[in-house]
Amino acid sequence: MADKLSHIDAAGNAVMVDISAKSDTARIAVAKGRVLMSAETARLIAEHGHKKGDVLGIAQLAGVMGAKKTPDLIPLCHPLPLTSVEVTLELATDTDAVDIVATCKTTGKTGVEMEALTAVSITALTVFDMCKAVDKSMRITDIRVVHKEGGKSGLFTAD
Amino acid sequence: MADKLSHIDAAGNAVMVDISAKSDTARIAVAKGRVLMSAETARLIAEHGHKKGDVLGIAQLAGVMGAKKTPDLIPLCHPLPLTSVEVTLELATDTDAVDIVATCKTTGKTGVEMEALTAVSITALTVFDMCKAVDKSMRITDIRVVHKEGGKSGLFTAD
Amino acid sequence: MADKLSHIDAAGNAVMVDISAKSDTARIAVAKGRVLMSAETARLIAEHGHKKGDVLGIAQLAGVMGAKKTPDLIPLCHPLPLTSVEVTLELATDTDAVDIVATCKTTGKTGVEMEALTAVSITALTVFDMCKAVDKSMRITDIRVVHKEGGKSGLFTAD
Amino acid sequence: MADKLSHIDAAGNAVMVDISAKSDTARIAVAKGRVLMSAETARLIAEHGHKKGDVLGIAQLAGVMGAKKTPDLIPLCHPLPLTSVEVTLELATDTDAVDIVATCKTTGKTGVEMEALTAVSITALTVFDMCKAVDKSMRITDIRVVHKEGGKSGLFTAD
Amino acid sequence: MADKLSHIDAAGNAVMVDISAKSDTARIAVAKGRVLMSAETARLIAEHGHKKGDVLGIAQLAGVMGAKKTPDLIPLCHPLPLTSVEVTLELATDTDAVDIVATCKTTGKTGVEMEALTAVSITALTVFDMCKAVDKSMRITDIRVVHKEGGKSGLFTAD
Amino acid sequence: MADKLSHIDAAGNAVMVDISAKSDTARIAVAKGRVLMSAETARLIAEHGHKKGDVLGIAQLAGVMGAKKTPDLIPLCHPLPLTSVEVTLELATDTDAVDIVATCKTTGKTGVEMEALTAVSITALTVFDMCKAVDKSMRITDIRVVHKEGGKSGLFTAD
Repeated sequence: MADKLSHIDAAGNAVMVDISAKSDTARIAVAKGRVLMSAETARLIAEHGHKKGDVLGIAQLAGVMGAKKTPDLIPLCHPLPLTSVEVTLELATDTDAVDIVATCKTTGKTGVEMEALTAVSITALTVFDMCKAVDKSMRITDIRVVHKEGGKSGLFTAD
Repeated sequence: MADKLSHIDAAGNAVMVDISAKSDTARIAVAKGRVLMSAETARLIAEHGHKKGDVLGIAQLAGVMGAKKTPDLIPLCHPLPLTSVEVTLELATDTDAVDIVATCKTTGKTGVEMEALTAVSITALTVFDMCKAVDKSMRITDIRVVHKEGGKSGLFTAD
Repeated sequence: MADKLSHIDAAGNAVMVDISAKSDTARIAVAKGRVLMSAETARLIAEHGHKKGDVLGIAQLAGVMGAKKTPDLIPLCHPLPLTSVEVTLELATDTDAVDIVATCKTTGKTGVEMEALTAVSITALTVFDMCKAVDKSMRITDIRVVHKEGGKSGLFTAD
Repeated sequence: MADKLSHIDAAGNAVMVDISAKSDTARIAVAKGRVLMSAETARLIAEHGHKKGDVLGIAQLAGVMGAKKTPDLIPLCHPLPLTSVEVTLELATDTDAVDIVATCKTTGKTGVEMEALTAVSITALTVFDMCKAVDKSMRITDIRVVHKEGGKSGLFTAD
Repeated sequence: MADKLSHIDAAGNAVMVDISAKSDTARIAVAKGRVLMSAETARLIAEHGHKKGDVLGIAQLAGVMGAKKTPDLIPLCHPLPLTSVEVTLELATDTDAVDIVATCKTTGKTGVEMEALTAVSITALTVFDMCKAVDKSMRITDIRVVHKEGGKSGLFTAD
Repeated sequence: MADKLSHIDAAGNAVMVDISAKSDTARIAVAKGRVLMSAETARLIAEHGHKKGDVLGIAQLAGVMGAKKTPDLIPLCHPLPLTSVEVTLELATDTDAVDIVATCKTTGKTGVEMEALTAVSITALTVFDMCKAVDKSMRITDIRVVHKEGGKSGLFTAD
């Protein structure tokens, strides 16, 4: 494990880490997250879940688009050409939650964890936006990286 | 409480809710969130906390800028002229967490919860980005609205 | 009818027309357009039309988001706070076409025709994108303003 | 020809198609479109056509910039580094129309039809914006791909 | 004159200044700047100066569009609806320079100096971009505010 | 040295230069610039210079983010994946100026001077924004390229 923060140089300046000398390798990252809500809100989402215009479908698309905006949002992220973004949502009616999984891929000099995490975050925010008229007490939670491969740091998996 | 989702019309189309007939009133929303991390990561952030270029300062600025991008990120959010965005971060060394609070204000026809929640989310993602070289197991959690005032729906507070 | 182009001044400079002295009035604009396609493509869209993740639902959301980007895309358009964006798509199976209608509203100093036209255009492009693997000969056509009200120039309607 | 829509997976989720395994090849796409207008509007454009600040020059630049925004506008488009964008406009005074041609190139894993079509669309919208004070009945029409080469699907040409 | 920096609060946090309580007033700001170049470069610009597609016309349009991006670029700037943006360029052949003037207006709670300065900066950068193949030694210089009116701080003029 | 402007074709159209046939090489560009201010303003910046939330740290981050927006801002710039952006600021208390240096790198088909120049410009504008409440007479000056390497045109250095 590194013993210092990679984005701050010796003089205390924020830097976009210099990846010029790195080689292009295949990269994958998977992130997860969850929106907790009332039973009533979960029921409303479920009612719409198989029709067009459903909450989960709209949030899913927002997540895909959000992944592409990552370098615009996260100051020290490198711009990189995503080759795949996949976002899935599942309504867990037993726990009154929407579970979100985002998988991003690229062939490049740096990883795509931030892209996957951003996709999950924007997806979750969009679920919130669409349900907030009926439920202001929702909670976005447990956003984390569960899988990362490619590059020098190798494979990382978590739950 | 409303009994249906506001962003989907009778035909199943996603709609940006028509707020044309609403009057302009002062609006405030406060959102909170938290990034959980290892003790070691919290220690590294603390070491840099009073110097320029620190993690918290960079994440804070990203959050302010993120609030302004809300209508670009959340498909059915209305564009609105924010009159104030304030983001604060606090390192809770006892619990190894960074606590984030974002307050947004506008004078307009609709609320600014999504702006405050987006500010918190982008702030949290930026903390993650800056620390991920030392800690891939961080977790962004408990993003929620804690205060909302202005508009017809009146005051909402939570913890 | 004006006898000169409003966006070019006497010296030949492109200008964003000065609307500072105009008063804020309610504005509405409706634009329409159409994507022509093969019978086979229309059939594929129809098959997915009532499920989540359908072509028309995705294109519809893209159109709503596109409307918000108008001042970013059209050089001399004023930024303005849209209070409503509504996009509807209908698959006309008899003519193998997708018909698109976009309605935009604001209270402001200038009209929202460009926002409605941009919504229709981005919607149509998204239909094209999603079907181009099966049909490269689609054609986006008949994009025009059919209704405009508010402001000094008054009511305009067309078919 | 494919028998299904490429952007929707088996579960009905919208996906950015996974192009990770594709090789980088030279790609070209050409799209065309047209803006129909009154004889009077065509005359006004012609009068300005050889001076600086002309309608066609401004619309052309908007089209070039628009091509670069394609992945921001079309939800499931991949971001890719365009190596060339060329937009030309011609005023067809006999038919009172502006004819638009856009050519985009890249070396990448996917084609650039959407970039060329977006360039044509934004160019056409900008012509509309600059002339709408004198002519609200313009019509943007016949936007289509006329040439595509590179990649596995090979050469496509149309008129 | 204020005796402290307005964008940093007592705790050292960067803040978007809270303008919620300010009233909407008419605001104007004018900024100027200059691009110094070789005599040869100035001659090349002059040769194209009265034709379409000229350097100055393209840079002018980039400046107008740049003004609209100000809140996206300057972290603590408020988003505001510009009601007028005017950019003019003049080739000073005696001094081998391009002189740029940008005027921005709004009716709002805060001034538009940053919008005018951003317009000048993006205009200057675009002149540089278009001439850099023939002249890498250009210099962008003397960007400043020359006029500001509206709001509590009153009239400011400079040269 | 070229004898014509590269971004305008024979017919007077603005073009994004076709770089399709160029090979990918390592590219570096360094740009510099300066913000002149009153002695009092320089003193205020210095007072905050070693704390978090300082003017220079915020401006530095804005510059890094600005570099990534270059193709969005400069009409005929190619989009390219920056592999490094570094911005440093130094307060020259003897001359009451902030000196800015930006270094950009990529591996690509075209140079990154415009990215470095844009980083300097946005950094300078952000310094201006944060100090304008105390000093409206600041001046952004001497923005230029001081180093460029990579690509066919070879090494360029200046002061």
